[in-house]
Amino acid sequence: MSVVKIIELVGESPIGWEDAMKQIIAEAQKTLRGITRIGVVEQDVRMINDKIDVWRVRAQVSFRIERSDNDKD
Amino acid sequence: MSVVKIIELVGESPIGWEDAMKQIIAEAQKTLRGITRIGVVEQDVRMINDKIDVWRVRAQVSFRIERSDNDKD
Amino acid sequence: MSVVKIIELVGESPIGWEDAMKQIIAEAQKTLRGITRIGVVEQDVRMINDKIDVWRVRAQVSFRIERSDNDKD
Amino acid sequence: MSVVKIIELVGESPIGWEDAMKQIIAEAQKTLRGITRIGVVEQDVRMINDKIDVWRVRAQVSFRIERSDNDKD
Amino acid sequence: MSVVKIIELVGESPIGWEDAMKQIIAEAQKTLRGITRIGVVEQDVRMINDKIDVWRVRAQVSFRIERSDNDKD
Amino acid sequence: MSVVKIIELVGESPIGWEDAMKQIIAEAQKTLRGITRIGVVEQDVRMINDKIDVWRVRAQVSFRIERSDNDKD
Amino acid sequence: MSVVKIIELVGESPIGWEDAMKQIIAEAQKTLRGITRIGVVEQDVRMINDKIDVWRVRAQVSFRIERSDNDKD
Amino acid sequence: MSVVKIIELVGESPIGWEDAMKQIIAEAQKTLRGITRIGVVEQDVRMINDKIDVWRVRAQVSFRIERSDNDKD
Amino acid sequence: MSVVKIIELVGESPIGWEDAMKQIIAEAQKTLRGITRIGVVEQDVRMINDKIDVWRVRAQVSFRIERSDNDKD
Amino acid sequence: MSVVKIIELVGESPIGWEDAMKQIIAEAQKTLRGITRIGVVEQDVRMINDKIDVWRVRAQVSFRIERSDNDKD
Amino acid sequence: MSVVKIIELVGESPIGWEDAMKQIIAEAQKTLRGITRIGVVEQDVRMINDKIDVWRVRAQVSFRIERSDNDKD
Amino acid sequence: MSVVKIIELVGESPIGWEDAMKQIIAEAQKTLRGITRIGVVEQDVRMINDKIDVWRVRAQVSFRIERSDNDKD
Repeated sequence: MSVVKIIELVGESPIGWEDAMKQIIAEAQKTLRGITRIGVVEQDVRMINDKIDVWRVRAQVSFRIERSDNDKD
Repeated sequence: MSVVKIIELVGESPIGWEDAMKQIIAEAQKTLRGITRIGVVEQDVRMINDKIDVWRVRAQVSFRIERSDNDKD
Repeated sequence: MSVVKIIELVGESPIGWEDAMKQIIAEAQKTLRGITRIGVVEQDVRMINDKIDVWRVRAQVSFRIERSDNDKD
Repeated sequence: MSVVKIIELVGESPIGWEDAMKQIIAEAQKTLRGITRIGVVEQDVRMINDKIDVWRVRAQVSFRIERSDNDKD
Repeated sequence: MSVVKIIELVGESPIGWEDAMKQIIAEAQKTLRGITRIGVVEQDVRMINDKIDVWRVRAQVSFRIERSDNDKD
Repeated sequence: MSVVKIIELVGESPIGWEDAMKQIIAEAQKTLRGITRIGVVEQDVRMINDKIDVWRVRAQVSFRIERSDNDKD
Repeated sequence: MSVVKIIELVGESPIGWEDAMKQIIAEAQKTLRGITRIGVVEQDVRMINDKIDVWRVRAQVSFRIERSDNDKD
Repeated sequence: MSVVKIIELVGESPIGWEDAMKQIIAEAQKTLRGITRIGVVEQDVRMINDKIDVWRVRAQVSFRIERSDNDKD
Repeated sequence: MSVVKIIELVGESPIGWEDAMKQIIAEAQKTLRGITRIGVVEQDVRMINDKIDVWRVRAQVSFRIERSDNDKD
Repeated sequence: MSVVKIIELVGESPIGWEDAMKQIIAEAQKTLRGITRIGVVEQDVRMINDKIDVWRVRAQVSFRIERSDNDKD
Repeated sequence: MSVVKIIELVGESPIGWEDAMKQIIAEAQKTLRGITRIGVVEQDVRMINDKIDVWRVRAQVSFRIERSDNDKD
Repeated sequence: MSVVKIIELVGESPIGWEDAMKQIIAEAQKTLRGITRIGVVEQDVRMINDKIDVWRVRAQVSFRIERSDNDKD
């Protein structure tokens, strides 16, 4: 029986929320394997000088853990 | 005075969340009349082999009930 | 052991919230048997031309399922 | 692209919560196909004469919709 | 030390949720300065005659308060 | 495309919750146009000397914004 | 400085929710002094034989504590 | 019309959650009559020296109040 | 196996939230033994004549139950 | 019967949360009368260069409305 | 003063929820020391071909941090 | 576009909540760079022998990710 771990990431994009989600996925793919689901926690827009700076998505990334002895939390 | 019923559907799309919402609307239009509102409950992305499989939207569909005797819940 | 099903309805009334709840009960009684409880989810008032149009109650209706083979969800 | 529907059921059992969940599954299997997930919303115990009557689980059943023209909501 | 005020607006668009968010931003820019963040509270679609009327976003707009004596709440 | 603003008011009445809601509506009608919906957030009763003082409803008032240049938030 | 205690009661009435709230108040007045507020947690209707049995309000009663040594929790 | 009171208890058991619930029921039965329902608020496991110490259930116990004059809250 | 009971108290202090928490602890220590944890539910400030009257903390006090026969809820 | 309005402010302070709350109160006192309560919604700390920049409190300010004809929302 | 870290894991088991919790504990014990508490966030059942595949528990694992310089987050 | 990661820590202090928050910040500064915000999730007090043991704050630490190949989750 495998165990799934869930971490929380915030993606940012000047384009839109779906692109911000792709930033999270790209980041997760760099170091994680067995990614099963990415669930949205919150969406907002950060403003600078009264203009859109970035669209942001805060999301929870679920991935299956393949443990080797020297892994750490 | 009419009564409104609310059911919950999950739409899926390889394109994005707005397209996943259109899948829900297309499905609802097949069998429902008097649809008034579709409210988002949750948004996520399902991954397979570390790649995006589908964008998903879970939403509540509100529609007015026109009752005939043989309808069932 | 019987199973209970829960559906969600919105009742409307020009009189008040308790009358809106009675609209839900009247609608449920048309097609359901074994109704055990109706729990309020939300209450509001819809306005038209800055005047009260209807008082609304959104509620969850619980009823015991007596299954016959050809029933559908 | 298929669409998933979510309905809410309450299972009861004199044995325990896991058996109450099995009552929900058994009920769902009678009429639904393509069941993907059953998520717990609430757990309680109903008491009669100060003794356990039933263990109850309220859960949301997700299943894929295969539409034919005469299906109703 | 400045203080930030938060107001709640609903944007509507026939195009999609990101455009509805841009309607909120355009409205806020008309009268507010020092806008820092716009957080999504809720997303839905309003339907008329079973077709999409508008995509809606309900959001909280945060902006820094520069007070002059005659401003009112 | 118009934008809707949401403000929060608490109505009080010695009679009951529905009358407290009418106090909110009366207050809103004094200064707002295009009121579309008033959603209940919370209901309680304030007591003084162990007797009912007032029934209270806390609600969110939604209204369409018609902007003129000198309006402020 | 006095301390306030909060207990939770459910009132029932065949008449309506406001009367159910009065049942809670009547019960609280029998044994409590310094009652300051009664906040609604939940409202529902219990049905028996598909008819309204009672309107129910679940509420939190806040009252000031005047301690004497032999009082217990 | 009787009134129901709700108190909150946490049961502990080295065996499992259902046994922890039975500890709550056993405790409630010692002093309460007219117990109608016990609803789960939270479930966890307390660990000591990296091993399971107890399974815990936090639950709300509802019981009908039969008042005599000298009862206290 | 002991059982833990949870009651809800509101502490008030003209000094600050931590002092308001100490008022709750002082009150609880008068009548309770085996207090394990006090969790914050809500924090606010009550104002009178536009000035700070008291800082308030609403919290849940957990304590182990040592039962003797004549204790009541 | 007066009506209470609720607005949302965020106070910032390099000292701590209670001082951040005092910033909100100071700001509110500049333009509002009949302030009754300020309820905490959220507390955090903003960091710059890995050091504490400000302690922040987001709170809802309740105040009684005294209307004159030319007031706006 | 030590600091506690909280991570989120999902355990799966074909047997039941308590066994799924034991999978989380077994996984945590492989790499963590000072585990104090494991709190349930969500429980569900995953179905494949309309039959139970696994019972799942999503939980938050709290453990005390003993830091050495080369540990990473 | 950088990505932000969010982890959850619990700080403890015999002094108060703000000092407990400083323990979290001190711990985070040991191993993290680009810390942007620390948001409070929960506040409580742990008691031992009916006296305050520690004030605790549970918070979410947000920090910007600078990835090197051998980093792990």
